Amino acid sequence: MITAELIGNVWATRKADRLQGYKLMLAEVIGSTQAGQRMVVVDQIGAGIGDRVLVVCGSSARRMVGNDDVPIDAAVIGIIDGDCII
Amino acid sequence: MITAELIGNVWATRKADRLQGYKLMLAEVIGSTQAGQRMVVVDQIGAGIGDRVLVVCGSSARRMVGNDDVPIDAAVIGIIDGDCII
Amino acid sequence: MITAELIGNVWATRKADRLQGYKLMLAEVIGSTQAGQRMVVVDQIGAGIGDRVLVVCGSSARRMVGNDDVPIDAAVIGIIDGDCII
Amino acid sequence: MITAELIGNVWATRKADRLQGYKLMLAEVIGSTQAGQRMVVVDQIGAGIGDRVLVVCGSSARRMVGNDDVPIDAAVIGIIDGDCII
Amino acid sequence: MITAELIGNVWATRKADRLQGYKLMLAEVIGSTQAGQRMVVVDQIGAGIGDRVLVVCGSSARRMVGNDDVPIDAAVIGIIDGDCII
Repeated sequence: MITAELIGNVWATRKADRLQGYKLMLAEVIGSTQAGQRMVVVDQIGAGIGDRVLVVCGSSARRMVGNDDVPIDAAVIGIIDGDCII
Repeated sequence: MITAELIGNVWATRKADRLQGYKLMLAEVIGSTQAGQRMVVVDQIGAGIGDRVLVVCGSSARRMVGNDDVPIDAAVIGIIDGDCII
Repeated sequence: MITAELIGNVWATRKADRLQGYKLMLAEVIGSTQAGQRMVVVDQIGAGIGDRVLVVCGSSARRMVGNDDVPIDAAVIGIIDGDCII
Repeated sequence: MITAELIGNVWATRKADRLQGYKLMLAEVIGSTQAGQRMVVVDQIGAGIGDRVLVVCGSSARRMVGNDDVPIDAAVIGIIDGDCII
Repeated sequence: MITAELIGNVWATRKADRLQGYKLMLAEVIGSTQAGQRMVVVDQIGAGIGDRVLVVCGSSARRMVGNDDVPIDAAVIGIIDGDCII
């Protein structure tokens, strides 16, 4: 999984029907040589802008939302504790 | 998911039968350290050249077109709203 | 999907049984910041050296050959038309 | 698979229910041009900080924990022997 | 698929039960802009140190060993012929 910081919300009014209702956020990788890389993630954990999060990629993102038909490949699976050093 | 801009159409008259009827477009990554990276994506949302889009990769691209037998690995899942900062 | 140019044939007499009969070619990415990256692809479209092709990666490569048991992760899905700018 | 060194524990009190009970660790790639790249991995082998480990990525990480519904994409599959040169 | 050279054996006495009996080798990518990148691969073809090999990644590695429960993501699928230019 990747460590990232949520830096914004992403709005896409015109999107696939099966994405309706999912919260999309902009995440930026932190704490790695890949720092700065950005991706859009689905969040169901209730994370907010500024939170450091764990992001899962690939088919496991569909497992996070519990629906194998949803066309996503990145999702938040947890909020990193404040005192956790990464 | 990746944020990208659609920069052209891609024509491949000689292609896999199961790709017949799918619209192929050239997308360039934007707003990330991977900016400039290009890929070919399937679009079923009706996006056009110049649109900023969300692209899903891997097996989830097959989920976007709703057919697990289609040999694709990148698809547009939404058009980013005009006022959305990425 | 990735745009690439086929630059050679790849011969591997000693290989997995399930790869018998598949044509292996050397492809080099073109038209992207990843240009120069090379990979070996299966071709069933009948592409040749010098052709610009669309390459699908990951589990979708198995979909291209229509056999989920074949251990491949990159396959040609189409030949880019000559006048198509990428 | 990737060779990495475990460099810390990762705590995420607020996380997906299906991650409860899994031990999360911070791993840094070693012995490759990707050295320095970091990722968070699940460990069920009993590895500790300072151990050199083999990490599997993608859907195979779910195979490691034997549960295809767990939303993870990286897991430790072995501890590299002390005298093994990588 | 990736072209690589086998440069060593990898020993991990303490590993996942389902990896018992599999031969692990250290492979270094050759003939691409990714040259130098290293990974650990499973070999069932009987390749040895110094052999140039074709490596498949992701879920297709599980197809190579014919067991979808084995937690691996890279495997040798063939030995490149000596006179094959890559």
